[in-house]
Amino acid sequence: MSRFLNRQYEKLEPYTPGEQPKTDGLIKLNTNENPYEPSPRARRVFCEEQVSKLMLYPDPEAAELVNAVADYYGLEKEQVIAGNGSDEILAFCFMAFKSPSDKVYFPEPSYGFYKVYSDVFLLKSNPIPLKEDLRIDPEKYKNLDGTIILANPNAPTGIALNLEDIEDILKTNESNLVIIDEAYVDFGAKSCVPFLRKYDNLLIVQTFSKSRSLAGARVGFAMGNKELIADLNRIKFSFNPYNLNRLSVQAAAAAIRDDEYFQKTRKKIIETRTWISAELEALGFTVLPSSANFIFVKSGSLSGKDYFTGLRERNILVRHFEKEPVSDFVRITIGKEEDMRTLLSVTKDLLTERNRR
Amino acid sequence: MSRFLNRQYEKLEPYTPGEQPKTDGLIKLNTNENPYEPSPRARRVFCEEQVSKLMLYPDPEAAELVNAVADYYGLEKEQVIAGNGSDEILAFCFMAFKSPSDKVYFPEPSYGFYKVYSDVFLLKSNPIPLKEDLRIDPEKYKNLDGTIILANPNAPTGIALNLEDIEDILKTNESNLVIIDEAYVDFGAKSCVPFLRKYDNLLIVQTFSKSRSLAGARVGFAMGNKELIADLNRIKFSFNPYNLNRLSVQAAAAAIRDDEYFQKTRKKIIETRTWISAELEALGFTVLPSSANFIFVKSGSLSGKDYFTGLRERNILVRHFEKEPVSDFVRITIGKEEDMRTLLSVTKDLLTERNRR
Repeated sequence: MSRFLNRQYEKLEPYTPGEQPKTDGLIKLNTNENPYEPSPRARRVFCEEQVSKLMLYPDPEAAELVNAVADYYGLEKEQVIAGNGSDEILAFCFMAFKSPSDKVYFPEPSYGFYKVYSDVFLLKSNPIPLKEDLRIDPEKYKNLDGTIILANPNAPTGIALNLEDIEDILKTNESNLVIIDEAYVDFGAKSCVPFLRKYDNLLIVQTFSKSRSLAGARVGFAMGNKELIADLNRIKFSFNPYNLNRLSVQAAAAAIRDDEYFQKTRKKIIETRTWISAELEALGFTVLPSSANFIFVKSGSLSGKDYFTGLRERNILVRHFEKEPVSDFVRITIGKEEDMRTLLSVTKDLLTERNRR
Repeated sequence: MSRFLNRQYEKLEPYTPGEQPKTDGLIKLNTNENPYEPSPRARRVFCEEQVSKLMLYPDPEAAELVNAVADYYGLEKEQVIAGNGSDEILAFCFMAFKSPSDKVYFPEPSYGFYKVYSDVFLLKSNPIPLKEDLRIDPEKYKNLDGTIILANPNAPTGIALNLEDIEDILKTNESNLVIIDEAYVDFGAKSCVPFLRKYDNLLIVQTFSKSRSLAGARVGFAMGNKELIADLNRIKFSFNPYNLNRLSVQAAAAAIRDDEYFQKTRKKIIETRTWISAELEALGFTVLPSSANFIFVKSGSLSGKDYFTGLRERNILVRHFEKEPVSDFVRITIGKEEDMRTLLSVTKDLLTERNRR
């Protein structure tokens, strides 16, 4: 820490991203990346003609992408803002919006960044524990006195809320902004976009990093009423107006227009998820019902840490959170079928070893 | 404005970027982009092999790039942080660092974003007017009581400070952080990097958007002592850890290693600048002595606004700032020689028309 650091950040605990290994040969199932390449239409953007224009700034409004998202969801372009990944969009949200109480409510556990953003922007974080079955209890989000942020499906559980419960939360929190983080929505949950017409306290955040296979391009976006989006633009244009790579804007626009590839790849992921979930259950695992591109699983005999470590030693990276009530679980990204077969076979070996001891 | 906006931003005036035209056929000399394509080594990064890995996250530490920058400047890797353009790095600086007085000092005019960042992060901005000749007066920056930020060369004037003056400012401000924004340094000024060994109150910000022809890739970086860089990383990992496109990391690393292309293109820009400056002076223009990839010029007969508008009507975009003491000037980015020849010829036409009236 330098002597110039703003003292308000002295005790700030930054987010810890999942490991990004620099060596090859690992099966990487730890950061919920899509195992399939970006859409061919998105890849075609990176042609000599476009690459040789990289000395030019991007359009700070990312109009091509904003228009493509608006078209896709049937919104007006003033209802969409694009960002450098949904993390930047979320950071802008925590910066831009503040309830009179300064409070922010979110599930615990959920995406670990919600707490970090609350800390950075001096908001009072109010984590609401999950129910014993690790589901969000919608009752606990009614009639609150602060901003609400919910990941749907939730992470790291993968469990989705149904839209009726979300609508009840929106209805009973008329004076509160409700942010729904739909990073994983395309893998089996339902988007809240239709509610945008009815509720002006709703803001939806999505990303191209998961279902659109573009984590490396850094593209996320938010959808809401025009006033909310104008507020976010006010922050963006006061922080980093040129926040998207030129080619990322074009690639993301191409990706969202390629519905055929999107449907094909997400279907494969959902099928693989169904299959691996059944296989792991047959081995005595508890597998939470996932609507995401990952599963959250607990072995009947291995501790979460031992399972994580055993897989790591055999070159399979998954994610383990050393905290209650989820320390017995590991989060496994759904990879290609062959990678999941390897995971399954290594898992069987680990269980056999465990039984021998 | 929505009813949820944090009231502290109610009166925030965002930065206004230069126009990014969506039509072709314009000569774009308004946002200080490099007229030359990125280095061939940088362009080669965008190959099918790398593009087809875009479903993977980038390395959040951008180690390949950080190492390349550290090598280039003879620093340790812990002395470098990469960001999504130097704007993001500057935003992180204003977020991270705060003097006990909350004051920030910078020249006026200079890069317009310094005022915006001060406002966003609730710092007290103290603009220090330039001297009558539009130079920074180094005397006014000695023994201050707050953070100092200086663009060197300054924008929009293009005039550089000499290193002795900067060293005096560093020496007489031991308790203050001094940020030197070297966005344009490669076009004729001297970098402060050698001072990093002697002064722990120095932080240097640079960008790949100008001399490295990568404005569209969004890459900037800061250099300082390890504690300052650790502070900036603390903010980055609490805001947007994956802040660089995967391919931007690689392209920027390749660009900084391609010294031959860098020397060739910046030499061409400097030569074009020398030539066009002399031509405009011969037409009665005042041309400030530029160490940047732009010139700041004032006609003897056309107002700044009329010159700007006349060029715009003839499809040449330059930048005009409607404020004193620079409203008589326009800022012209140094483009390719053929574009500058067109500018010159259009300028002659405008002067002739003017004289006819």
